[in-house]
Amino acid sequence: MAAKRPLNVGLVGCGFMGRTHSNAWGKVNQFFELEYQPVLKAVCARNPEEVQGFAEQWGYESTETDWRALVTRDDIDLIDIASPNDTHAEIATAAAATGKMVTTEKPLARGGAESEQMVKAVDAAGVPNMVWYNYRRVPAVTLAKQLVDEGRLGKIFHYRAKFLQDWTISKDLPQGGAALWRLDVNVAGSGVTGDLLAHCIDTALWLNGDIDRVSAMTETFVKERHHNLTGKTEPVGIDDASAFLARFENGSLGTFEATRYARGHKALYTLEINGEHASIMWDLHDLHRLSYFDHGDEGRVRGWRSIHITDSDHPYMAHWWVPGLQIGYEHSFIHQAADFLTGLATGELVSPTFREALATDYVTDAVLKSATSEKWEMVKRA
Amino acid sequence: MAAKRPLNVGLVGCGFMGRTHSNAWGKVNQFFELEYQPVLKAVCARNPEEVQGFAEQWGYESTETDWRALVTRDDIDLIDIASPNDTHAEIATAAAATGKMVTTEKPLARGGAESEQMVKAVDAAGVPNMVWYNYRRVPAVTLAKQLVDEGRLGKIFHYRAKFLQDWTISKDLPQGGAALWRLDVNVAGSGVTGDLLAHCIDTALWLNGDIDRVSAMTETFVKERHHNLTGKTEPVGIDDASAFLARFENGSLGTFEATRYARGHKALYTLEINGEHASIMWDLHDLHRLSYFDHGDEGRVRGWRSIHITDSDHPYMAHWWVPGLQIGYEHSFIHQAADFLTGLATGELVSPTFREALATDYVTDAVLKSATSEKWEMVKRA
Amino acid sequence: MAAKRPLNVGLVGCGFMGRTHSNAWGKVNQFFELEYQPVLKAVCARNPEEVQGFAEQWGYESTETDWRALVTRDDIDLIDIASPNDTHAEIATAAAATGKMVTTEKPLARGGAESEQMVKAVDAAGVPNMVWYNYRRVPAVTLAKQLVDEGRLGKIFHYRAKFLQDWTISKDLPQGGAALWRLDVNVAGSGVTGDLLAHCIDTALWLNGDIDRVSAMTETFVKERHHNLTGKTEPVGIDDASAFLARFENGSLGTFEATRYARGHKALYTLEINGEHASIMWDLHDLHRLSYFDHGDEGRVRGWRSIHITDSDHPYMAHWWVPGLQIGYEHSFIHQAADFLTGLATGELVSPTFREALATDYVTDAVLKSATSEKWEMVKRA
Amino acid sequence: MAAKRPLNVGLVGCGFMGRTHSNAWGKVNQFFELEYQPVLKAVCARNPEEVQGFAEQWGYESTETDWRALVTRDDIDLIDIASPNDTHAEIATAAAATGKMVTTEKPLARGGAESEQMVKAVDAAGVPNMVWYNYRRVPAVTLAKQLVDEGRLGKIFHYRAKFLQDWTISKDLPQGGAALWRLDVNVAGSGVTGDLLAHCIDTALWLNGDIDRVSAMTETFVKERHHNLTGKTEPVGIDDASAFLARFENGSLGTFEATRYARGHKALYTLEINGEHASIMWDLHDLHRLSYFDHGDEGRVRGWRSIHITDSDHPYMAHWWVPGLQIGYEHSFIHQAADFLTGLATGELVSPTFREALATDYVTDAVLKSATSEKWEMVKRA
Repeated sequence: MAAKRPLNVGLVGCGFMGRTHSNAWGKVNQFFELEYQPVLKAVCARNPEEVQGFAEQWGYESTETDWRALVTRDDIDLIDIASPNDTHAEIATAAAATGKMVTTEKPLARGGAESEQMVKAVDAAGVPNMVWYNYRRVPAVTLAKQLVDEGRLGKIFHYRAKFLQDWTISKDLPQGGAALWRLDVNVAGSGVTGDLLAHCIDTALWLNGDIDRVSAMTETFVKERHHNLTGKTEPVGIDDASAFLARFENGSLGTFEATRYARGHKALYTLEINGEHASIMWDLHDLHRLSYFDHGDEGRVRGWRSIHITDSDHPYMAHWWVPGLQIGYEHSFIHQAADFLTGLATGELVSPTFREALATDYVTDAVLKSATSEKWEMVKRA
Repeated sequence: MAAKRPLNVGLVGCGFMGRTHSNAWGKVNQFFELEYQPVLKAVCARNPEEVQGFAEQWGYESTETDWRALVTRDDIDLIDIASPNDTHAEIATAAAATGKMVTTEKPLARGGAESEQMVKAVDAAGVPNMVWYNYRRVPAVTLAKQLVDEGRLGKIFHYRAKFLQDWTISKDLPQGGAALWRLDVNVAGSGVTGDLLAHCIDTALWLNGDIDRVSAMTETFVKERHHNLTGKTEPVGIDDASAFLARFENGSLGTFEATRYARGHKALYTLEINGEHASIMWDLHDLHRLSYFDHGDEGRVRGWRSIHITDSDHPYMAHWWVPGLQIGYEHSFIHQAADFLTGLATGELVSPTFREALATDYVTDAVLKSATSEKWEMVKRA
Repeated sequence: MAAKRPLNVGLVGCGFMGRTHSNAWGKVNQFFELEYQPVLKAVCARNPEEVQGFAEQWGYESTETDWRALVTRDDIDLIDIASPNDTHAEIATAAAATGKMVTTEKPLARGGAESEQMVKAVDAAGVPNMVWYNYRRVPAVTLAKQLVDEGRLGKIFHYRAKFLQDWTISKDLPQGGAALWRLDVNVAGSGVTGDLLAHCIDTALWLNGDIDRVSAMTETFVKERHHNLTGKTEPVGIDDASAFLARFENGSLGTFEATRYARGHKALYTLEINGEHASIMWDLHDLHRLSYFDHGDEGRVRGWRSIHITDSDHPYMAHWWVPGLQIGYEHSFIHQAADFLTGLATGELVSPTFREALATDYVTDAVLKSATSEKWEMVKRA
Repeated sequence: MAAKRPLNVGLVGCGFMGRTHSNAWGKVNQFFELEYQPVLKAVCARNPEEVQGFAEQWGYESTETDWRALVTRDDIDLIDIASPNDTHAEIATAAAATGKMVTTEKPLARGGAESEQMVKAVDAAGVPNMVWYNYRRVPAVTLAKQLVDEGRLGKIFHYRAKFLQDWTISKDLPQGGAALWRLDVNVAGSGVTGDLLAHCIDTALWLNGDIDRVSAMTETFVKERHHNLTGKTEPVGIDDASAFLARFENGSLGTFEATRYARGHKALYTLEINGEHASIMWDLHDLHRLSYFDHGDEGRVRGWRSIHITDSDHPYMAHWWVPGLQIGYEHSFIHQAADFLTGLATGELVSPTFREALATDYVTDAVLKSATSEKWEMVKRA
């Protein structure tokens, strides 16, 4: 086994996403044969005690409490941003300016305007970059992409996606700070549109091409919540629910919906594509399965196939266990890390780059605009 | 057992719906204890041979080939209309004018304007009337209604319905005549909007109250088809697919979609309601099940319940077999016939009456208008 | 349409099975084109009031309260036995002796010895005969038979069946009389072995061939119950649960189980066949679906297909509604009636005849014997 | 965060199970707060190149090619055996003799006789020991155990388990050596009985108590296979399929089956328990779900609950991601490692110890004996 090339990673943020990224960098070389080996050089977060504990738990060699210090360190090759949305643009831009690679948790930023600056920054610096739209690397979703690309579905008529949760129904849930920044519009940029629909849109653009225009509605069911940072009851600025109709460039119709008020669903991201010859369905609650209907099957025995995506001929699965033994959520990040590292070795940037992820921001911008204008809105093209 | 009061039925139409209605009238007294007993007095259709065969098969005492003759017969109490949409208004109006009860297959007519005339006619005549929106009487759906009415769901946040089919994808399928009148806009009035969405809307209004306004899109994927009546290739006037966003009066958000281009789905009518305390899902492809999530269940063992609707404490099911033994599609019509006959005995009209069904036409009108105007459109109120 | 040949039916029994048979005879000509038309000539049950009500409800022309009177009537062509198990042999034998056709609800009788007499009687009389093992005519099961017969599964390795119910768990449930004769060993012959396993065995023999030998265990969880006929607490003589291992003649292994103590299952009859090339699963709780796995499918998209058995190329389904619209339990009886009537016209007896059904009794005999002997027991061959 | 106490691990074997164990030791401290921290001190396997590559991949500090050398090293606290079954007894005995802790992949050994020696060895040495019956630590299965222990099911009537695979159907598959030692009876001890049924039995004994006696059948469908070690076609000594009936000490009935000839199933381990008040089902192919039926639920809305085991109040799940995001197969090993390390800190041995696992060998012994004797066989008690 040849010696690996080290890739020194500096992580910003040690919340939920800091954990998924750290797990990915830490495990990827145990399951994939790669030229590069991530080295967990440093992690950065504002609270010194918290960041110290996180570093010990995940094996980071050092800590920082100011991302500016992290970004200027010479011993870091890549800045990985897992902090809240309002920090992405500034950190990414600064990191790119120092010539570092940059990866960031999705969404790219709080909307197209901010995101465009980030794209410019990495393009100007010519540094590798990537956004962690991890669901593309769930093996079942990757297989869906293969099937679409192979033309098995034929002409596409319909694309359907929703992302349903139920964790903010209680009026007593506060907004802002720590784990609840997603309810604070200043930090998050928007509610479920940027958080959940962004996932649905990213996958849709990848699988089904560009969206021309949208008609949307949003709703904020709980209008005021206690704010953890101000200590006062404050208006809620985010959208609790968001749905839109879409017309894709390829002539197909799209329906999209996301909410945090769908009692009984924790993280039910589902997608379905109906083509002339075949259809595909997938569901995050059983992410190791893909449903596939092939109209070419003999009529009497034609039916939706429930494919248990655990065989070695399924994307990424040769690297894991044996047929029948499922992987979980965290593995999608490991796969994305593997692809990124492979891309470094081959010199080919891995999708979605910042530029590619910007397209999703343009759709969410149009969705939010349409919800206000109550008109169909065109989607800006990257 | 007391002697039954006969109800002399005259049926118009001997296609698919003529069969479901005949089956309902014929079987209802074998499974329900009712004061009234339908008598299959006459069936009417244009083709003498076809109507004769139908009468023999289903036990009709006589036949007619002109509905005008049927409507004026003295030995008929009720005219049941199972002929294509373009015939509903004229027949119903004439029947009501003779003082006969009138029931009609859905939709009421080809749109609100026509339907309003029918409402006026039955109201003026003061005759019992009903529209066969049969899915209300699928026991699982009826149970859903009970649960909503009991307040178990609490405040409603979301209503979601779709009706997906795949039988018109082939470009070689002609339009018009016999079984294909649903593709002929002059006969059907619209495509999936009046055919499939009408079912979704009727159930939604029943379960979740009025819809204030909608934003819709429709599409005709195959623009021209051979027309069976003209013998020529003609433009297709119907909508092949239709989707809309809705705002309900109760503050909840609705998403609706119907299509005949969803490969793999034959008649997948699904509905879901998300409330503060509980959620409900139902699916026509497994119509004997209801999915129910009760947030009041203890956390560790909380999950979607798959209720096999075959017990005697489920709506209508005490009249059928034993627990575990499912019924099918046709039974929803039998239940509706049973309720109608019960209503005759008690003097209470059974929902949906023509007036109630008109509300669905107003929604489909708004949907079709919005698809053209590309704006949100208000729904007219009955 | 040519005039139908009448088939005058005399039914014995007006309980649950009396209803399913009556429904079948009454509806079959509305859905199938047949030369014969059943005429509901007479129904017989001991209670005059009950039988009178039943006759009115189902349209029988006359009633009897003594089956001997029914059997000797000249205006009856076929005696259909839907009364408890202990009556089958005597009635069938007497009916055959008068030259009448005989059909009987399953099991044929209370065991092989009794059943052999019935086979002799119908064979001696040369009269058409059939046992209502209705599950063979659930379209999904019939399709399974077609697939097996076409050799699609290849060499069979495993056959697996169970029939789980939960309706007798309460100790307060009495035994004997009316609907509870199934708990009275003198009437029923055995418990779940003759009631539920008999269904599993009949289908297994049909799909997978003869069983050579078995090792079984049975259990009676509630040892004493109030007896409705004696008015006293009496020992329970039936088996509450029964399971057995089987070796089929074709070299495959079988596992079978039935119980009325499986909380949560109402009538969960499931079967599965694993062959070299393909496998099949079916489940009575969703009887309109067949699960099919074809190893010949391309690896990446191979999965269990959930076939919605509602298309016109599925067995029997061209006679019902349109694709996607499911039928239910009662339809299996209608299909069996249709096949029987077709068989009369062609002169070919329809399976299972008494002789064929006797094979099932031989297996249940061996099961009960093995449960007592605690040894493997050979199955007698017909 | 206090400094961790190191636990120096020496692993034997670097195949499939070497990977799952290494992954568990390596990740456990990133997700659980533990006093002990495993240190991957050494890994041992016969092939020097292979073991070197494995050590680099998983971060072992050193390698050995003779387990005897590993066992006598002073810098190792725990010997973890992940090599084939025929090596367990010798290595474990030697390791215990040096005072080291011992853990071993299941089954304990090739049958009760061998396993008894191992129990004696660890008991004599007084060293902590454990067998990796990992499925106990799938959160859904652990929850099942909690529900049983809380008495929610009431009296148990039925226990049902099967483990179905399809990977050895081809006659061209050889036996012996590397990944195929499971087909070599000398190495494996038995076929599916010791491999797959052992899992089913371990869970059953844990959830439902002791088994008194069994009646079994086994089959070897392919009688001869090329042997990789001898280079010749050799008789196949293992059982390809195995099924048995069981009587549990608590009066319930058990049915068990395992096979590698069930086309369409990769690793379908399912279990079901039916109690007086409630029932439970679980399925390894969707291991993140538990099905639960509570008869105490109100009748109208009673149904099987599909519990998505991803909430923080589910066993182990507070350590992972957020609700709705599933974990996979490998996590069960991490949980077992966490429990073992917790047990070291508290001084309480974690189940199943060697002694507890011996009970499973006694059942598999009885199963194999019964398959030969064709009689019911008593199960030896530990």
